[in-house]
Amino acid sequence: MTPPHLQTYAQRAQKHTNPAAKLLLETMERKQTNLSVSVDVTKAQEFLAIIDAVGPFVCLIKTHIDIIEDFDNSLINRLQELSTQHDFLIFEDRKFADIGNTVALQYSSGVYKIASWAHITNAHAVPGPSIVTGLASIGVPLQRGLILLAEMSSKGALTTGSYVEDAVRMARARRDFVVGFIAQHRMEGIDALERTDVADEDFLVLAPGVGLDSKGDAMGQQYRTPEEVVLNCGCDVIIVGRGIFGKSGEFNAESVQVQAKRYQSAGWDAYKKRVSLP
Amino acid sequence: MTPPHLQTYAQRAQKHTNPAAKLLLETMERKQTNLSVSVDVTKAQEFLAIIDAVGPFVCLIKTHIDIIEDFDNSLINRLQELSTQHDFLIFEDRKFADIGNTVALQYSSGVYKIASWAHITNAHAVPGPSIVTGLASIGVPLQRGLILLAEMSSKGALTTGSYVEDAVRMARARRDFVVGFIAQHRMEGIDALERTDVADEDFLVLAPGVGLDSKGDAMGQQYRTPEEVVLNCGCDVIIVGRGIFGKSGEFNAESVQVQAKRYQSAGWDAYKKRVSLP
Repeated sequence: MTPPHLQTYAQRAQKHTNPAAKLLLETMERKQTNLSVSVDVTKAQEFLAIIDAVGPFVCLIKTHIDIIEDFDNSLINRLQELSTQHDFLIFEDRKFADIGNTVALQYSSGVYKIASWAHITNAHAVPGPSIVTGLASIGVPLQRGLILLAEMSSKGALTTGSYVEDAVRMARARRDFVVGFIAQHRMEGIDALERTDVADEDFLVLAPGVGLDSKGDAMGQQYRTPEEVVLNCGCDVIIVGRGIFGKSGEFNAESVQVQAKRYQSAGWDAYKKRVSLP
Repeated sequence: MTPPHLQTYAQRAQKHTNPAAKLLLETMERKQTNLSVSVDVTKAQEFLAIIDAVGPFVCLIKTHIDIIEDFDNSLINRLQELSTQHDFLIFEDRKFADIGNTVALQYSSGVYKIASWAHITNAHAVPGPSIVTGLASIGVPLQRGLILLAEMSSKGALTTGSYVEDAVRMARARRDFVVGFIAQHRMEGIDALERTDVADEDFLVLAPGVGLDSKGDAMGQQYRTPEEVVLNCGCDVIIVGRGIFGKSGEFNAESVQVQAKRYQSAGWDAYKKRVSLP
């Protein structure tokens, strides 16, 4: 059977059983983009302006809703309107990392009510399977998808040894809800040698740390190009932040769109080479 | 040299150089308590009522501020008033788990501005040293302390193999800010055999999953008694939640105080045995 990353996004969308993953793959195909923009800014106005500017070029907007200083519920309404208008999904990069009971509350409740608006969120595997159970109790009825962090791109990350295998095992145990990984390469080979029940599995791989112009920042983040990430390593979605919208307070819609188009093209060209499309 | 857990809290307070850890140890000695109550409720009124009830019996209140549905800034003001009135520190159990730049924003900014009111917060070691660097850039100027999660008490947690050692190494590299661990036992022996510069180190060990009446919950949390945790395993602070304040919506100040006193006594008796006090 052809491994997922050598199939087209359209082929994979047809077969995927999780509603959020299916919608994401359909959107990628329809808009011809595997670009996700990570909108890590602290002002609501700049947050919305960036999303409105990059919206046409992305499949997925990645948020850190908890860094926005002037958050209120109208921001979520506006974000959802932009999601509909520009046809993208929303991925709250919450990195849940607690035990099952706690993450269920953090996901459903509080000021942010993440489950009510984020199609996709993510979690660390470190607490063990209870974190997936807790989040699934909220997310599955809402047709949400969960991404597990199998690796991190920061220097000295502890996602080493059996950590990655254990994360993959946790994902396999809940394929109705876990739709993929934050990682640097495909996960199909991990812990699957002796298994026969993994032939039809399709985990999306979302790759952070993507940049065309820079190799890293002062706090340990490291960057790779879209070609390295998509073509060489088989990742499905490239996540780009400041490389597209620049420094805080310097927002300019035109230059942001130039960069978004540039990354969209780089990501899509790499994907076409990967699946041997002209 | 006497290891930290065989010294009194007062002796350790005198020597500790981090302001938050020093204040916590002084408070424990003054109030004769090593009890921390984890106030995991979703309504502001119940949150404050529980804290007001248990305040006299605790050294530390552990919060999940992001599960409170009707949060506003007045809640923080009231929490700080209770902290002063009842003489306890505040520990926001945020479990930061992102790269340096992001956690610095999550800690300082957003709706919650955690660094402005939480004496202590915590972080996972999994992203590597950049998470400590990022949080320290905000926390050190504010005289805050950071707890690293070296272990988790949930079933199937991935804090295995070299994970614990790596977490301890990250803590040793920033002793001005990292004041201890969420763990099930002392950490002094970890990776210290060949080292001579660790003789004066004093990491607090805060133990979750403490209960007198129950062995676990349906989502994989496991419980141990105060005596096991403090006397046998050398932990410094016992963290207790529902065991003290019961089910949501069933708050009764009198019974909460009975339970808080019961855990305070159990924790303090275990400590006295440990340091051979009468």
